Amino acid sequence: MTGLGEGNTEYGRKKFKRSRSHFTDRITAAGEDGWPVEAGRYRLVVSRACPWASRALISRRLLGLESALSLGVVDPIQDDRSWRFTLDPDERDPVLGVRFLHEAYDARETDYPGGVSVPAIVDVPSGVLVTNDYPRITLDLATEWTALHRPGAPDLYPERLRDEIDEIAEDVFRDVNNGVYRAGFATDQDEYEAAYADVFHRLDRLSDRLAERRYLVGDHITEADIRLFTTLVRFDAVYHGHFKCNRNKLTEDPVLWAYARDLYQTPGFGDTVDFDHIKQHYYRVHTGINPTGVVPAGPDLSGWSTPHHREQLGGSPFAPGATPPGPPPAGEVIL
Amino acid sequence: MTGLGEGNTEYGRKKFKRSRSHFTDRITAAGEDGWPVEAGRYRLVVSRACPWASRALISRRLLGLESALSLGVVDPIQDDRSWRFTLDPDERDPVLGVRFLHEAYDARETDYPGGVSVPAIVDVPSGVLVTNDYPRITLDLATEWTALHRPGAPDLYPERLRDEIDEIAEDVFRDVNNGVYRAGFATDQDEYEAAYADVFHRLDRLSDRLAERRYLVGDHITEADIRLFTTLVRFDAVYHGHFKCNRNKLTEDPVLWAYARDLYQTPGFGDTVDFDHIKQHYYRVHTGINPTGVVPAGPDLSGWSTPHHREQLGGSPFAPGATPPGPPPAGEVIL
Repeated sequence: MTGLGEGNTEYGRKKFKRSRSHFTDRITAAGEDGWPVEAGRYRLVVSRACPWASRALISRRLLGLESALSLGVVDPIQDDRSWRFTLDPDERDPVLGVRFLHEAYDARETDYPGGVSVPAIVDVPSGVLVTNDYPRITLDLATEWTALHRPGAPDLYPERLRDEIDEIAEDVFRDVNNGVYRAGFATDQDEYEAAYADVFHRLDRLSDRLAERRYLVGDHITEADIRLFTTLVRFDAVYHGHFKCNRNKLTEDPVLWAYARDLYQTPGFGDTVDFDHIKQHYYRVHTGINPTGVVPAGPDLSGWSTPHHREQLGGSPFAPGATPPGPPPAGEVIL
Repeated sequence: MTGLGEGNTEYGRKKFKRSRSHFTDRITAAGEDGWPVEAGRYRLVVSRACPWASRALISRRLLGLESALSLGVVDPIQDDRSWRFTLDPDERDPVLGVRFLHEAYDARETDYPGGVSVPAIVDVPSGVLVTNDYPRITLDLATEWTALHRPGAPDLYPERLRDEIDEIAEDVFRDVNNGVYRAGFATDQDEYEAAYADVFHRLDRLSDRLAERRYLVGDHITEADIRLFTTLVRFDAVYHGHFKCNRNKLTEDPVLWAYARDLYQTPGFGDTVDFDHIKQHYYRVHTGINPTGVVPAGPDLSGWSTPHHREQLGGSPFAPGATPPGPPPAGEVIL
């Protein structure tokens, strides 16, 4: 999602309201919706700028689905035709053969009037959009795509922890993932201040929780950590200044900053992050809050690779029997 | 100065250019320009938001000129009539009797076509603007108004240090005081990045210099410190986010942060600072860079009162025989 011209973000009105995903078909092991899990059949389309799409990028890496589910990366700058494959040779996605993501939406629903959002999963043979349902996509990658997981893939959504993960994810979505957008797109002072209060109230609670434990739920990385990480990694680069979430930087909260670095340094997290795409997107697309389109040169990002010392809290990134993913495929390395 | 509708700031063009002061008469002991130093005759008009006006606020406090040179404080929000006395009873300056600072400019020059800037010194009997020449005003307060200084007033511009003060002040003006404006008002990426580089290059040099010495020049507070302070105290509140000077916050540079706190905690500095006026002005007036007019709730300012430990470097705020000023007059206390 993220920004202008997408279905899931209504922007420029008095009160920011995130729209629901329109296409909620599921890709499942049994294929109840007509979309069975199948290696090589689907293409995940993301913007590396977008926190909602980045959840899927991380899950795909951790689960080792890179060869089973191919990846298209759009230009971080949308124009009035929304997300574009302008980064690819001939400005076309090499697998789908299209120039714009909206072509897959249109193939699904003629003259689809809504916005075009990422993450999107497209059926390659037909070129038809299957789903843009970001909260469901990662859960299905974790639980329905298991036959295609790499050996040693973690269980990111363990049955016995699902209630706890869901509960935390709900708070994190409302106050953090979406809270920063409510703050940033507010055009009314009171509305902004309420969102700002929600963001920092929740971050303070999360900081308290993470002072004593390495990960949000259980002893290993889960879906809950992925969902918090995608906002934290963008915090100082875009949410602090551009979205006015400026009580403090992430780097000024020792617990959350160490937690975010710990995840960042775990294979599958930091190797999906493109700070340049993130900054270019937010500062150049949201002309309603940054009319000049000038992209800040800061912040200094060198701290992301410094030691975090979170091992001392116990826990480990992956449960016994699970392993970290290998390096990203050559074509997906961020320079 | 600062912001829209003033003579000294040209804003909204491709390249930000600070205009020169138009009215450069001097108020001197001998009165060569027709404006002799005289207790009670002049009124200093400032915005507490404005760094250029704040130099004069600090000098006036340190030198104990509060009763000799009265003070008018304008509303931090200009409208199309520029600086307004909207904070005063009946929305008129109680001494000058005017509603807008432009009335003093018009009294000086009929149909004056330029902008209206602060600091401005107005001749009370005639209501005529004498000077808006901010770089000269503080030097004259220090060197020409000596007969009216309080007992124990410091020498803010000692003869033997003037060359060094002038040299540092020139670098600080170009790269820091005005550098943040060049960055913030840039509408071109390259122009912005050049200004950003200047800002942080100079701040790094100043940080090196101040690592070993308590003040910029000599062993005590001088004009050079006043000129650097007025930018540093605004850095995290407005320049970091609003002007995109975001390599790091002031609070992330241990030397400059301690130096700024040391000055802030010295009587005559922090008691002139109104963070609310500062934030309201920058975020609500510069609609070209913040069209929503939403004013950030951050940053957390509680750190300004924490110990700075700069005494350990030697030096002292005031030379032997000089003393700190007393508290501000009752009507000038910032709540």
